[in-house]
Amino acid sequence: MRWREFLIPTSKETPKDAAVPSHVLMLRAGLIRPVMTGVHSYLPLGWRVLRKVERVIREEMERAGAIELHTAVLQPLAWWRQSGRAAELRDALLRLSGPPDDWRCQTVLGASHVEVVTEIAGAYLRSYKQLPVCLYRIQSGFHGEERPRRGVLCPRESLATEAYSFDANEAGLDESCQRMHDAYGRIFRRCGLPCLACEAERAPDAIAAHEFMMLAEAGEDRVALTDNGDYAANAKWAGSAEPPPAANVPLEPLKEVHTPGCGRVEDVCDFMGTTPAQMIKTLIYVGTEARRHEGTKGNVAAGAPAGRGEVAAGPRTGRSARGGIRVVSLVRGDHELNEHKLNKVAGLTLELADPRTIEELTGAHVGFAGPQGLAEKADKLIIDRHVAAMRNAASGANQTDYHVMGINPGRDFPLEGDNVFVADIRNVVDGDPSPTGGGSLRIKPAIEVGRVAKLGTTCSEAANATFLDKQGQRQPFVMGCYTINLDCVIAAAIEAHHDDNGIVWPMSIAPFQVLVLALDPRDEQVMKTASEIHDELDAVGIEVLLDDRDERAGFKFKDADLIGIPLRIIVGKKSLADGRVELSHRRDGAKHTYEPTAAIRQVVKLVNEELARLS
Amino acid sequence: MRWREFLIPTSKETPKDAAVPSHVLMLRAGLIRPVMTGVHSYLPLGWRVLRKVERVIREEMERAGAIELHTAVLQPLAWWRQSGRAAELRDALLRLSGPPDDWRCQTVLGASHVEVVTEIAGAYLRSYKQLPVCLYRIQSGFHGEERPRRGVLCPRESLATEAYSFDANEAGLDESCQRMHDAYGRIFRRCGLPCLACEAERAPDAIAAHEFMMLAEAGEDRVALTDNGDYAANAKWAGSAEPPPAANVPLEPLKEVHTPGCGRVEDVCDFMGTTPAQMIKTLIYVGTEARRHEGTKGNVAAGAPAGRGEVAAGPRTGRSARGGIRVVSLVRGDHELNEHKLNKVAGLTLELADPRTIEELTGAHVGFAGPQGLAEKADKLIIDRHVAAMRNAASGANQTDYHVMGINPGRDFPLEGDNVFVADIRNVVDGDPSPTGGGSLRIKPAIEVGRVAKLGTTCSEAANATFLDKQGQRQPFVMGCYTINLDCVIAAAIEAHHDDNGIVWPMSIAPFQVLVLALDPRDEQVMKTASEIHDELDAVGIEVLLDDRDERAGFKFKDADLIGIPLRIIVGKKSLADGRVELSHRRDGAKHTYEPTAAIRQVVKLVNEELARLS
Repeated sequence: MRWREFLIPTSKETPKDAAVPSHVLMLRAGLIRPVMTGVHSYLPLGWRVLRKVERVIREEMERAGAIELHTAVLQPLAWWRQSGRAAELRDALLRLSGPPDDWRCQTVLGASHVEVVTEIAGAYLRSYKQLPVCLYRIQSGFHGEERPRRGVLCPRESLATEAYSFDANEAGLDESCQRMHDAYGRIFRRCGLPCLACEAERAPDAIAAHEFMMLAEAGEDRVALTDNGDYAANAKWAGSAEPPPAANVPLEPLKEVHTPGCGRVEDVCDFMGTTPAQMIKTLIYVGTEARRHEGTKGNVAAGAPAGRGEVAAGPRTGRSARGGIRVVSLVRGDHELNEHKLNKVAGLTLELADPRTIEELTGAHVGFAGPQGLAEKADKLIIDRHVAAMRNAASGANQTDYHVMGINPGRDFPLEGDNVFVADIRNVVDGDPSPTGGGSLRIKPAIEVGRVAKLGTTCSEAANATFLDKQGQRQPFVMGCYTINLDCVIAAAIEAHHDDNGIVWPMSIAPFQVLVLALDPRDEQVMKTASEIHDELDAVGIEVLLDDRDERAGFKFKDADLIGIPLRIIVGKKSLADGRVELSHRRDGAKHTYEPTAAIRQVVKLVNEELARLS
Repeated sequence: MRWREFLIPTSKETPKDAAVPSHVLMLRAGLIRPVMTGVHSYLPLGWRVLRKVERVIREEMERAGAIELHTAVLQPLAWWRQSGRAAELRDALLRLSGPPDDWRCQTVLGASHVEVVTEIAGAYLRSYKQLPVCLYRIQSGFHGEERPRRGVLCPRESLATEAYSFDANEAGLDESCQRMHDAYGRIFRRCGLPCLACEAERAPDAIAAHEFMMLAEAGEDRVALTDNGDYAANAKWAGSAEPPPAANVPLEPLKEVHTPGCGRVEDVCDFMGTTPAQMIKTLIYVGTEARRHEGTKGNVAAGAPAGRGEVAAGPRTGRSARGGIRVVSLVRGDHELNEHKLNKVAGLTLELADPRTIEELTGAHVGFAGPQGLAEKADKLIIDRHVAAMRNAASGANQTDYHVMGINPGRDFPLEGDNVFVADIRNVVDGDPSPTGGGSLRIKPAIEVGRVAKLGTTCSEAANATFLDKQGQRQPFVMGCYTINLDCVIAAAIEAHHDDNGIVWPMSIAPFQVLVLALDPRDEQVMKTASEIHDELDAVGIEVLLDDRDERAGFKFKDADLIGIPLRIIVGKKSLADGRVELSHRRDGAKHTYEPTAAIRQVVKLVNEELARLS
């Protein structure tokens, strides 16, 4: 390809709205063109990268036995209602506009395609003999994020690989999931992404999940991991080792303190001369039962199992007639409550209670709640493990403008009981002991590029997608779900591989493998040699771009650095006088001169070596 | 690929809703799965076909110098307003649903991508030195057809190639258009589609267009063509030779006839003993100025040229204050008025007038209009050429329950004048003399698979997309637009290549090139040989499917015929006892037996011959 016949609109300026290096470089190198917030086009150079990533994915999916299909963007809303995901996504699920009763009103843009693919499986996979099957697509997905994130990370429209496996039983799912886990690992390795498979927050319907995360300053996710590599998890979901047992100190008596206007932890600490680590934060939530799919088609789903491993809602559920189930949660003043964990422990979808509910429950204004007596008044009391290990702590007094000191778990509020749970409901922090016992956790920013999750039978039950087992009984498919965000893969590759001058593409996904740079394109001999090298490389299947622009050498070098083609052959008058051209690496700038035919041989060798290294 | 590891859900039953052979066969052969009206998924076998078509398109587009990019589905409504196409498409332009002032309300699903690609060109192509450039995409397009058509022909969501060329001047556009015309011709030839390039109805913004049509009974389009091949046009737009001059007969006097209740041509003819060919139909329309883009961004568009070659609206435009411009049109009673042609001649967007307007204008109930006196009362009188050549005709009398006989053009109504136009405003009919003078026209059903159109500067002016010419002056790009509907290509290929038993794929787009059919898969030797043949063909790059299912031979043969793989190797116990396998063609059923290695050699030879024949 000749630069002048291609479209690579490079730019020297740093775009205003771009905050992270990958976004800046994708704009500056002419890979993408913004269309609207969260939506962009891939320009020809960016599209070549995307097609290379697609190719790697297809090769590895095929190797793993997955079968590609193409599902439409437009989907019936009814299917999303049936799966329960219309309610789950709410506004994030994009819908068409149209008059009532028009087909448009009943149509959504696929945020993902589990409903569509499950319907296909249900229609065509009839017997256990046909299983396992893994179906995948590589296409656009749509998500109405209110606040689309930085650059191409999680935009409103993005390109994704979605794969779904259908198995006859859990053992089959384990195998399918492992096969896809391995395939995804190979895909990211081949794309040059040093990824960690992290324990993930489980989606409502998933029974286990791993996220493939690449550590990067620009990442919006957080990973908790140990230095020795024996633990890595999404920080939103990560656990830590049990806290040390309570100190063996004499229990002080409970003492009320007048703390007028001190509703915040810091104010109380200042006032009472204590520390946040000695405070108990009492946070009150109101919950509704965790959602299940809205409707069911047949018998199979009717017997849908209640929770798997979650703490059961308990007999007291529903005690509050007005405003849902009231949950009191306790965490240490220096810790952050983790709502995901809290929801999971409660088996509910929780929201912070409004002031009226709090005042009703505690008898005090907001900011003065304490655990005393609330186990009896609320539906659930959920206590973080670190709170359970506190001694002589401080907390609100359930009386406006009063706190208490010398509060002790077990004495002043229960640690056991039908509606009392001690659990891990806090965010991990840097330095926490690892749950594996091996060292302490570090929290680092990361980009999520993919995810594997075991869905079990929830989706197939909702869609009534069944097969006949060996005994001739109808069974719902046991499903797994595997996604890769291609936009994120490209952004992550740039985050991992760039320097101050531009992108440094891994060979496997570089838009071209070698750039031939004609330094003096008006010089006939230079242009002739550069063209010949281009044509010969092209003929042997090397992806080559010839910079044939009539521009200054410095300008062309800057563009070359910016767009980051891994190898570079420089054809200039001076070296050509000695019958030689210069071959250099974008990665380290290492240069050697060769005769043109030797340079071509060397390029072929380096390309193959580099691809082999990544495979 | 092994059948048991793939997903090919064939079916013996003819689907209820499928009317045309291609739709029936796509469903029965397991190529597609319906999702909702006008929307379907491509199942793995269909997706392979689609990917083959894509590959052919990419190769030919690249050969023609076009550059691929990827544009998003979501687009700003503002861009569609600016180009005027939001008004043009109205409800057919799908929009997102959301609260007022939300970004969703301002977002559409791309029906096509001229706005987006023109914006990119305007942003990055700055100088005439960068031109010509042709950008293309192969992706989904969305169209809210009220009545999606049969099968995969023109659904609500379809896969299309859209290419846009950007040139500095008309001469450049001519070249770009010809290059794409040639590329499209090669694409259809390679896909096995015998296409005609037909003169097309021009879109409102196009200055010339050709549609690639394939004659097929299932087609919803109509083509008018001559047997000698010197003329082919979309029948909606086709012309015919000038009618013979008026017969040299004495002019009869005008005579009123009482025709109570005879408002329809047939009734009048019966009543008056005349024929439709002797009647003048007087059809009254109300029009608005043909739309232009709603807003313009800058100076360039402000001077947008009025019509190109259309008949000017004339000084009388706008005479009717109420209800728009009134146009009276005359066609022979046995002819059909062509509204597209009428609009073009009028330079207006016309709709049939309501009864009140008709009665106001003619002074009679609907059904009794005649041309007498209407040139004076209406804004325009547009007379079909065949009417101008009539003598002693019949028509309405502009008086309820009365017709006239002996009406003569030129005497009883004018053929000339400021607001009088004689033009071709009728549909061509089978047997019309060709406008080229070469024989007569035949009207045949056809499928449109592609289109090339010269857009000129309308779109670039609307978007204010300009470049600097040699003189350093800003000029709008001179654009061309080139589309292929991939769904239609596949449907057309099946329409052209099938028999009673199923599909007969052209080698170039067959999902697999050869099917190895293991007749007795439980026989170890059969399965071993079949597997070896499969593996060896696969190793030499032949796309091979092995039917390894444990099913009856007849069942497998039926499926083989249905899915239509071009070549077939049958491995059975009987012939294998002689060390031979059978090689046959799906097209003609011709069979030969070979030793396995010879069969492999023969397959490679036949595949290459067949691909060469199509290239």
